[in-house]
Amino acid sequence: MALSNSNVLGWAATDTSGHLSPFHFTLRENEADDVTIKILYCGVCHTDLHTIKNEWGVTNYPVVPGHEIVGVVTKVGSNVKKFMKGQRVGVGVMVDSCQECECCEQDLENHCLEHVLTYNSPYKGTQTRGGYSDLIVVHQRYVLYFPNDLPLAAGAPLLCAEITVYSPMKYYGMTEPGKHLGVAGLGGLGHLAIKFGKAFGLKVTVISSSPNKEAEAIHNLGADSFILSSDPEKMKAATGTMDYIIDTISAVHPLGPLLDLLKVNGKLAFVALPGGALELPIFPLVMGRKLIGGSYFGGLKETQEMLDFCGKHDITADIELIKMNEINTAMERLSKGDVKYRFVINIWNTLSSSNIY
Amino acid sequence: MALSNSNVLGWAATDTSGHLSPFHFTLRENEADDVTIKILYCGVCHTDLHTIKNEWGVTNYPVVPGHEIVGVVTKVGSNVKKFMKGQRVGVGVMVDSCQECECCEQDLENHCLEHVLTYNSPYKGTQTRGGYSDLIVVHQRYVLYFPNDLPLAAGAPLLCAEITVYSPMKYYGMTEPGKHLGVAGLGGLGHLAIKFGKAFGLKVTVISSSPNKEAEAIHNLGADSFILSSDPEKMKAATGTMDYIIDTISAVHPLGPLLDLLKVNGKLAFVALPGGALELPIFPLVMGRKLIGGSYFGGLKETQEMLDFCGKHDITADIELIKMNEINTAMERLSKGDVKYRFVINIWNTLSSSNIY
Repeated sequence: MALSNSNVLGWAATDTSGHLSPFHFTLRENEADDVTIKILYCGVCHTDLHTIKNEWGVTNYPVVPGHEIVGVVTKVGSNVKKFMKGQRVGVGVMVDSCQECECCEQDLENHCLEHVLTYNSPYKGTQTRGGYSDLIVVHQRYVLYFPNDLPLAAGAPLLCAEITVYSPMKYYGMTEPGKHLGVAGLGGLGHLAIKFGKAFGLKVTVISSSPNKEAEAIHNLGADSFILSSDPEKMKAATGTMDYIIDTISAVHPLGPLLDLLKVNGKLAFVALPGGALELPIFPLVMGRKLIGGSYFGGLKETQEMLDFCGKHDITADIELIKMNEINTAMERLSKGDVKYRFVINIWNTLSSSNIY
Repeated sequence: MALSNSNVLGWAATDTSGHLSPFHFTLRENEADDVTIKILYCGVCHTDLHTIKNEWGVTNYPVVPGHEIVGVVTKVGSNVKKFMKGQRVGVGVMVDSCQECECCEQDLENHCLEHVLTYNSPYKGTQTRGGYSDLIVVHQRYVLYFPNDLPLAAGAPLLCAEITVYSPMKYYGMTEPGKHLGVAGLGGLGHLAIKFGKAFGLKVTVISSSPNKEAEAIHNLGADSFILSSDPEKMKAATGTMDYIIDTISAVHPLGPLLDLLKVNGKLAFVALPGGALELPIFPLVMGRKLIGGSYFGGLKETQEMLDFCGKHDITADIELIKMNEINTAMERLSKGDVKYRFVINIWNTLSSSNIY
């Protein structure tokens, strides 16, 4: 049965309970610059959880989440030369931008003031629907080649989680071989930060409040060492030993102890979005000429570069593959940090009745 | 009358009232690597005020403040080839460090863990005494040539205030001609940030809570524009217009409004040391890939470079020259921000009876 834009099946949350259930909606038609994609897999990002519960106060219900989308092209518009039917492609956090401003011209579409998120954004008279669904229509500029050497399911989280970690490491210069990287928080983003750190030739130490993550971090994920953040002696012993920290902790947390781990000229990049403000102690920042920087996923060019890098270095996420109807349980587990390390929904054979692959 | 190391006159605070009064002390003898300096002028830094009142909790009374010292060499040790008697020299924030660690080797003595501050630091069995005094003995590495084309009194604040502003502008890359610099706070550091900004070819906007500083900033100091931080409409109109901000505000203050003024990829450098932690909102940092960095004066090599730059570009501080016995009134005025823009004490003819110049 061919999929129809007029009756697409997705799973949506309809109120702040965040409970997801089947939801039918209409997709816009494929225009000249568009690519229509049959979705095969979609990763489950912490942003999805924040959004379905309206934790950032910007959710428009009903909302169909999902911005780690891997699929296959089913239709292309007349202007589309880069993609063809049957090709493996990915869609990440955004699906449009103004294409004219300074940011867009510099391949920083993610910072365009008019960028359109893959879900929950007003767009062309309706709102965008994400990857917890059968089908999506996306302007070709925002579609990515998905390298042949990457597995589809374990590759899905690359589209958001991975670029979120890769981009600041490149931008803030956290890639000098032999340097010492701290990864604060060992979840979806953290486990990828370990993999990138090792691929860049860094020494990697995980800083976590969960003692039971130590063996996992070192034996399964390849970290060089582990510090329990609640152990004051271990934290003290590590004072001034790190060149970089990637802070992936999505809850409000104290920054002082992390800043203390940095050497002089050390750099800390934030990649998560805690709901509240953090307390920033000024003395360690000033006395150690330390730097705190934010980063917000990445532009399309850099995302493609990251995908190619992952293909070459065999980097994928560690995932738990779930069925569409397991999503509510998965969200509950995600809220407790109980996932190793990213849920990915098998869309193609657990959502739609149309099984084209 | 020759000055004697065994009976040096300074002005010291003896308790948390911060009141300064005459105080006699003994200086160490001039050793092989040392330079003895007759102090002519000393700038009054906000750090002096923090210290005499023990606002950072680290003061050892009695304390003789002062780390913006300009003077003339009266004696050199046998290993000293760089300096000679009668030469104009400066001493800034520090007078020693380990001289062996990675920081010292990289000309970042200011970040050496064993660096010795010019006053209030334990040192060679006693504690260091600063520039509110007649005489100082300093290891030659920490003595700076004071360019002949710089006036002595107006040049004194260069030794601390100026390097504090210059160093982060260079380190964080805030010097690209044509870019837009915001200067938050218009005091001793702020007014120098304007001068550097203009010397680097930047557009400079002052952000201040004092409406009466507008004319001053623009007509006397050369700023291009002024934003009253308490005017929400003006602040809103300036959203996303600045490439860099130098934050010189020494009180605890909200960071969000300043971060909002920055463009995507904008940079904010802290150069003051508010007593408490600041609230750091994460969203603007992450969404705009903005950066917050600290900076803690500078190493000796860079301080010399800055002095030479100031000589070449005719940059000095705007000062109010005071007598030594006016210091307590000056401190009171400084605590209210009532100074344009730096007090400098005329040491040589208001402190000591020995008038050698």
